[in-house]
Amino acid sequence: MAERSCDPEFVAFAGHLADEAGKVVRRYFRTQIPVDDKADQSPVTVADRETERRMRDLIARRYPDHGIAGEEFGEEGMDRDFVWSLDPIDGTRSFISGSPLFGTLISLVHRGQPILGVIDHPMTGERWVGANGQAHHNGQPIGVRDCTRIEDATCYSYGIEALDGDAGAILGALFRRVKLMRFSADCYAYGLLALGFVDLVVEDGLKPHDFCALQPVVEGAGGIMTDWQGKRLTIGSDGRVIAAGDRRLHETVLALVRD
Amino acid sequence: MAERSCDPEFVAFAGHLADEAGKVVRRYFRTQIPVDDKADQSPVTVADRETERRMRDLIARRYPDHGIAGEEFGEEGMDRDFVWSLDPIDGTRSFISGSPLFGTLISLVHRGQPILGVIDHPMTGERWVGANGQAHHNGQPIGVRDCTRIEDATCYSYGIEALDGDAGAILGALFRRVKLMRFSADCYAYGLLALGFVDLVVEDGLKPHDFCALQPVVEGAGGIMTDWQGKRLTIGSDGRVIAAGDRRLHETVLALVRD
Repeated sequence: MAERSCDPEFVAFAGHLADEAGKVVRRYFRTQIPVDDKADQSPVTVADRETERRMRDLIARRYPDHGIAGEEFGEEGMDRDFVWSLDPIDGTRSFISGSPLFGTLISLVHRGQPILGVIDHPMTGERWVGANGQAHHNGQPIGVRDCTRIEDATCYSYGIEALDGDAGAILGALFRRVKLMRFSADCYAYGLLALGFVDLVVEDGLKPHDFCALQPVVEGAGGIMTDWQGKRLTIGSDGRVIAAGDRRLHETVLALVRD
Repeated sequence: MAERSCDPEFVAFAGHLADEAGKVVRRYFRTQIPVDDKADQSPVTVADRETERRMRDLIARRYPDHGIAGEEFGEEGMDRDFVWSLDPIDGTRSFISGSPLFGTLISLVHRGQPILGVIDHPMTGERWVGANGQAHHNGQPIGVRDCTRIEDATCYSYGIEALDGDAGAILGALFRRVKLMRFSADCYAYGLLALGFVDLVVEDGLKPHDFCALQPVVEGAGGIMTDWQGKRLTIGSDGRVIAAGDRRLHETVLALVRD
């Protein structure tokens, strides 16, 4: 389970990617741009595409031997040791409805395992970076808080779609049992967990470009993030995740959602 | 249905109240302060109380003949022509989980009817003001957008608690029918509607200190906000609301939720 180390050069470069992504995103925020529906009915805009294109170009120039897996333009070089996982706008639904709670997700994956995560919120001016067993928020070290009981937990998840899936009954019961439940924050929820203000995020249907960047931030802050079987996340995980600030809470929730 | 006019002096004073409220709120944001549960199980903190206290003091000094109805310290002078309705932190659940999407709500109510609304978000630096048939966002005039069909609508509401109430089945069906559904934004959702990025907000369980400030903003931006019977909101309304940018959409949703 020991996390692999990440060269500081990669951490700095990921920050550069986030800076450049933010410049594109900010140009489009709260402008009336067309919204297309993808095959899975999720929305996409020119802002998503242009932001990912910009990051892919920068990576290809700097690290031509690295692979890239992005939400909008797919995978290339997935057989390489290092693969950059990119979600230009995580929370496109927030973005197109004018809410600032969306983020750019950047991860460096080494042989399938995320070793660096950046959660960048260009409109709130916040950046979380996780690597080498540490996490920072705008340059300051951060950490999770203790919370052992579901009944005391502040929990985030995506929305009532959660209630419609295979695990809908289990999630519905969980969401009604926690002390405080909030929805629709996307990657921001994991940032709040790493800051010690949220205890639990339980979701399914995430893609690798969603969760790869989140895990190093959550675990760098002292939390734990696994799939619903309790396994460490890899780029091949199925997209069902539990993130918790407190390992005891994670164990309890895992017992509820595990097959 | 014609809206009553509001003296510009009151508009300016409400802005001053919001400035002062924001100073208090910002001091407490993302600090680990104790959270108390009120009788209705909703959370409250020293930040809520201190912010309302500050606004009440300013009102009492400037307009001693006005009434005040606040979330934390109750009602006084409700028989007066003018009553200030205050919610120091709308979205305390966001506030205590470290999310910036909470706001201070200030309304001036004249003989039961809201004539001025301020939605102030101290952490995002955004202020919506509605009065005299106009609405502004950070000083710029704003307006709603057209959207006639539920299937094309971006909709916000509070959370899965909506599905547990009397109207749960109707709301669940509505939330699954819209194009894009988001939760847990509290008063920010109405601000986004007034900006033309959200089409519909349907909620129940609001209190007068919630909805009084929202209505002048929504209607000043050209939208419509009523109760579930289609009646204009007054300080005595029951807290079930429909806000829509487009009157045709409002009519359609009203037909679904009306008794």
